[in-house]
Order: sequence, then structure tokens, then C-alpha cells
Amino acid sequence: LKAEIITIGDELLIGQVVDTNSTFLATELNKLGIAVVQITSIPDIRENIMKAFDDAAGRADLVIATGGLGPTSDDITKSTLAEYFGSNMVIVPSALESIRIMLEARGVTMNERNIRQAELPDNCELLHNSAGSAQGMWFKKDGKDYISLPGVPFEMKAIFSEEMKPRFKQRFILPAIQHITILTHGVPESEMANMIHDWEESLPGNLKLAYLPSPGILRLRITGKATTDSASLSALMENEAEKLKTIIGKHIFGYNDDKLEVIIGNLLKSNNLSLSLAESCTGGLISSIITSVPGASAYYKGGIVAYSNEIKTSELNVSPYTLIMNGAVSQAVVEQMADGARTGLKSDFSVAVSGIAGPTGGTDEKPVGTTWIAIASKKRIISRTFNFGEDRGRNIQKAAIAALFMLRKEIMDCL
Amino acid sequence: LKAEIITIGDELLIGQVVDTNSTFLATELNKLGIAVVQITSIPDIRENIMKAFDDAAGRADLVIATGGLGPTSDDITKSTLAEYFGSNMVIVPSALESIRIMLEARGVTMNERNIRQAELPDNCELLHNSAGSAQGMWFKKDGKDYISLPGVPFEMKAIFSEEMKPRFKQRFILPAIQHITILTHGVPESEMANMIHDWEESLPGNLKLAYLPSPGILRLRITGKATTDSASLSALMENEAEKLKTIIGKHIFGYNDDKLEVIIGNLLKSNNLSLSLAESCTGGLISSIITSVPGASAYYKGGIVAYSNEIKTSELNVSPYTLIMNGAVSQAVVEQMADGARTGLKSDFSVAVSGIAGPTGGTDEKPVGTTWIAIASKKRIISRTFNFGEDRGRNIQKAAIAALFMLRKEIMDCL
Repeated sequence: LKAEIITIGDELLIGQVVDTNSTFLATELNKLGIAVVQITSIPDIRENIMKAFDDAAGRADLVIATGGLGPTSDDITKSTLAEYFGSNMVIVPSALESIRIMLEARGVTMNERNIRQAELPDNCELLHNSAGSAQGMWFKKDGKDYISLPGVPFEMKAIFSEEMKPRFKQRFILPAIQHITILTHGVPESEMANMIHDWEESLPGNLKLAYLPSPGILRLRITGKATTDSASLSALMENEAEKLKTIIGKHIFGYNDDKLEVIIGNLLKSNNLSLSLAESCTGGLISSIITSVPGASAYYKGGIVAYSNEIKTSELNVSPYTLIMNGAVSQAVVEQMADGARTGLKSDFSVAVSGIAGPTGGTDEKPVGTTWIAIASKKRIISRTFNFGEDRGRNIQKAAIAALFMLRKEIMDCL
Repeated sequence: LKAEIITIGDELLIGQVVDTNSTFLATELNKLGIAVVQITSIPDIRENIMKAFDDAAGRADLVIATGGLGPTSDDITKSTLAEYFGSNMVIVPSALESIRIMLEARGVTMNERNIRQAELPDNCELLHNSAGSAQGMWFKKDGKDYISLPGVPFEMKAIFSEEMKPRFKQRFILPAIQHITILTHGVPESEMANMIHDWEESLPGNLKLAYLPSPGILRLRITGKATTDSASLSALMENEAEKLKTIIGKHIFGYNDDKLEVIIGNLLKSNNLSLSLAESCTGGLISSIITSVPGASAYYKGGIVAYSNEIKTSELNVSPYTLIMNGAVSQAVVEQMADGARTGLKSDFSVAVSGIAGPTGGTDEKPVGTTWIAIASKKRIISRTFNFGEDRGRNIQKAAIAALFMLRKEIMDCL
């Protein structure tokens, strides 16, 4: 099965919006064993939409379009597709009702435009949007399938997982493709390639390996195609993942969709341990990551964002003398910050970060990117220095990830 | 002048990489008055590349492709284009020399692969790559222009600004396309459409309006095409933006690339005011947004993430009695949090947020999504309650944005 993705919207063609919808869809379709042959971004223009649908149907069996389903005059996808598929427009009571319920929950009364959102082509299957008022539409024509989705990412994602994925599994004969993703930390891509070279070379022909690097994390994805049945494919893949574990086990921190912050949360919760934070250059990002996990209040007490030296002293008990003698970005200060958070916020573990995020503030001795991270526990305080480079945004991001990995290791070492 | 962007690479079609190259090129081309008619992402397959070039030339005068110019075996763009344009491959001495110099600076000696990077089609104009070894190539055929660029973003960007932009200005007669984006808050898309309906209907034919909604923010983009000269287009567009301001002025918080956190930072800095935060459900996200702005330390003192009631009391001086009587998510508590942060962290303004992010913790009286936000200043403490719905991630996001908008308003009201 081959698919083409069409993203519709003037904002894509003037560069105002990065097209993450097609990245999401391409990822999800590939996971299901549906190959994406092309991604096409076009403006909100009737002729372009029709031509793109024609062209896509020449390359693919399944055409998935996003965007242009809003209630305003520049959103013309719905009317264009109605014309393209020869539909009559009808008010669909179930759509109207679900829009009414959604608006009611938000305390908004229905207006003319909302009602128009329930006016839909009569020859498509509706894909219910649980996150918004623009319904998804599934058309069929000459043996090909066409799906139109709203462009708002979380609405598109909701329809994909709730309405499309289950139908795909029912209606399409999908090849048995399986993935195991191994999450590693601490080994760069080229070094990893050397370490696992022999294992990779000996992989069975129906298994393929991909390296997926992102800041601080390298994911290794094994993709397998079933030659006989899917159960034996699972067994084969798990066997290879086990072999890989014997080679690089100490660098593996999780599998598949595991998230570092969830792994840390589970470690803390299952051992009845608590956490606090003292952030300077990361400015609350670590706290924000920790609290993105539902139920984080079971182990996370809270944190101090000590952006000024004043607050490092008043809230974290950092000695003004230490600050003057060593500067805020120093081992002595970051260790006092960690200790101050752990004692003051009464937690088992604490993490402290102090660095020069940039673009200014660097010196010859401590250039932009210099970052100190400390972890305090009942047992001890450990600390380490890093240099993450010159970009402010990436410095903050990398410091947060490094701090979380140090925390994970220290919790395990202290257990 | 019409352009089409083609991004080449398997990684795009399996969702491994977000296509930011086309976003950059689309932005830059539009600024130059070159309209982008389509963006097409295709795999590293000879036939697909040739077909995409054919199709693009049918829609556009200028075709810009990125990707597939690396030295490894899956990079086939160069050889495919040589075939497409009937080129002979020759070692170009100037390219060889510049690759040698670049490698030398990195302390690397030249190998076979590097030399192959200097082997280029003999019928293209070379666009020098100051940031890497893959040269840009400019072909001409049947009156159309075709440019091939490396896919590594910073190399592509270097060639664009150093080699392409100056040539474009020399060689093309560029029409004046201009954009004004108006940033609004507080009015949903459909309501906004009603409010500005008459204005929108009366827009001159060469101006077009687009609605670009994102959580908490609705951007209105006016795009104008010059009919006579670009100065009168500017004047026309500014005039329409002014008219719009008289209708929805109080909902406008910025223009074009303005960011809320930068606007707030400038407000604080220019009035010599300082800020502190007391976050519960937002868990540090507001702090993280505030500190994403370079130079935030000039006005941001820091914050307390008071995730537990214990910390609300110990760090923010919230009365344990108030907590018991009202619960943590209450007007009384959030106002005490704001006051505690402002007093304890010694700032002019403070923001406090307490809410039920979910998925659990909701009650009939206070369902998931219930959020209290307070702003404290020297003058007073104001507070407001919201319900942001059921999704944890969006609750946190929306609470942060709502808090920032309340802060902005209160700073302006207090000036």
C-alpha cells in the first residue's frame, strides 16, 4: 500500500509554519507498513488542490490531506473536495450535535459558522473529531482512498489515532512490519556504529537497522518484515534486541516510546523517593519536563528557579562569599544549590544546574555553553561540568537532558 | 516569478526528519517577492527526482531542490541531475581547492570521497559552499532556472544568502509581495471572522487575508501584491492594518514575528520592573518561556515551582489554614502564592498559577482543567479562574499562555 500526503495551506508556502503534520503522518504510516511516496504542500487554491489530488492518485493508493477545513473564507478544502468528488452538502445531525456539545463545554454558544462546520459532503464517511469542530472525511473513488483532515496538529492526531488507525487495520492488508526501538545515551552515532558493527552485519535479511540521533539521545530502530508469521518475527526481533543488549546494555535507558522523565518518575515512585530542583540557566525547563508526566506530584515536591544570585542566596542558602569567589557558574555554587534545594524542599534527591546559556555572559575562562550540574542525595553530592556550545536554545535543552541522565544514574547508583 | 521547492531524501518520507529547509526557503523567497507554488518532498530515487523536476517546471519558473548531494551511495541527486541536464562530469579545480582548504582547517586530509565532491556537471554555474564540501549548482534549460543545494540546513542557508540572494536580485525582476501579520488574543477564529467581516469584504483585490490560529493566539495575515510600486503597496497595507486596529485594537498584542515573552520582557525592562513566578500546575513552563528570551536576567528574578502544598507554605508563605479551607486550586491560595512570590523574591510583579492539570485530581466542583491565575503588583492582586479542558499537556500550555497575557495586561494597566 502506497500513500501520499498533501498538506494544504498558504502559511506553508510562505514559510510561516513548519509542516510537522506530514512528519507525524509519515512516521505513523510507516509504522503501519504503509510507504509514503511523496509529500506535497500546496496553497489554498481550488485548482491546485484538485490537481494535487489527481497527481497523488497517480502515484498512491491512499491520499491523505490536511488543512483548509476551518470555518473561515480562506479554508476551501471542504468545498473543493465536494466538487472534486461530486458531493451534495448536507447538515449532518451527529456532527452538529458533537460540535454543540464541545462548544457547550467551553461555554460558547453556537453561531452560523459553527453550524457550517456540520455541513458536510453526503458521499464521504465522517471521521469524528474529538478535539475540535472540523470533521475528518474519507472519500472513495475509482478504487482509491482519500482522507481529508483538519490542519490543527492535535485535532489531526486525534482523528488519526481514534478513527483512522483502527479502520486501516480492518480495511487494508498491511504487511506485518514490526519495530523495536532501543533508546541509548552517551555514545555518539559514529562510535555506536563501530561498537555494533559485527552485530549489524549479521542481522537477518528481513531486519533493517536505522540510527535516529537527537540531542543527547541516540535511538536504534530495528524494523522487521514478516517472512512467515508475525509471532516468529517478534521472536526473531526480540532475540536480536537481546544480543544488542549484551553489547551496549549499559548505554540503553529504555525501549520504544519510553520517555526519560517517565522512567525517572517510575524509579522515584517505586522506591518511594522524592525529588526537588534548583535551576538557574535551564530556567524551569527541567521542572516543566518532570511535571509533564501525569502523577508527578507523587514524587516531585517542587523547585526553585534561582535566576538571580540574590535568590540563590535567599532561597537556596548559597553562600554570598562562594558566589563572589567562584562565580554563579561553578562547582562550589551548583553543589550548594543542590544541597540547598534538597534540605530546604525536604526531598531525597535534588538536581541543580548553573550555566551560561548565552548569547552573552561568556568569558575566556567560562565561554558560553559552560554548565555545571550537581545531584544531591542523602549519601553525597556529585557534580560535573559540560560545554554545550554557542546556541542559547540548544544549551538549555542539552543541559536539561544531561541533568536528567545524571539524576537517573545517581538514583540507580544510590539504590 | 514563481518557484517550486523540492526536498529530496528518504528520511523525509519516513518521518525521521522535519523538513525545515523548505520552511526556510519559502520564507526567504517570499521576502524577495518570489511566490512558492508548491513544496514537494520525494525519496532518493532517480525516476522520482526526474519526474519531480519535470512537474515543477510545469508550475514554476524557478525550481530549487535540496538534498542528496553527500558523498555516500544513497546520495544520487548530482548524478541524476547530470543525466537530466545532459552534463559531462568534470573535476572542477576551484571546487577541489576550496574543499581542500576547508578540510585542512578541520585538520582532515583529503580522501577519495572528498575528491568526488569536486566532480561536478560541466554545464552548471557553481554556487560556492562556504560551510561544507557539497557545492550548489545552477542549471538553465528552456528558459527555466534550476538550483540544487545540499540538504544540511546550515550549508543550504550559507549558499542561499551568500550566492543565491545576490544573483536573484541581479537577474530576476522581482514583484513586490508584502505581508503584515497582526497578532491577536482573546477572540476565537469564528468570532473574529464575524467581527471583521465588513472590513475583510471591503479589502482591495490585491490584498488577501488569512487566519492562522494556534493555542491562545490568532494571527491575521494580510498579503499584498503590488499593482504599481512597492511603496504604495506598503502604504495601502498599513492603511488597512490601521483600519483593522480601530475595530479589534484591544485584542492586538503584536505584529509580525513579535513574541509574547519578548513583548513582556521589553515592557518590564523599559520600565525598570522585575518579575517573579509561583507555579503549581504549570510546573515551571512559564519560567521556561520567560527565560527562553536572551537577557531575561535583566528583569526576571526567579520563581518557585510549588508542586506540593508543603512548599506552597514553606516557600510562598501560603497559610496552611487557607489550604485546608479552600484547597490548593482556589482564589485564596493563588493570591497568597502571588503575594508570597512578590514579597519573598522581591519583585515588582509576580504571577501565580494553581490548577488541576489532570488526568486525575478533578472533582464535580473543580473538574480537570480548573485553573486559578493571579497577578500581584505593588498596587493590588488580581485573579481569575479558567477551565482549559481535559488534556493535561494542553491545560499546562494554555494556563501558561493565559498567565502571560494576564501579566501583560496588568503591567500595562499599572503603568
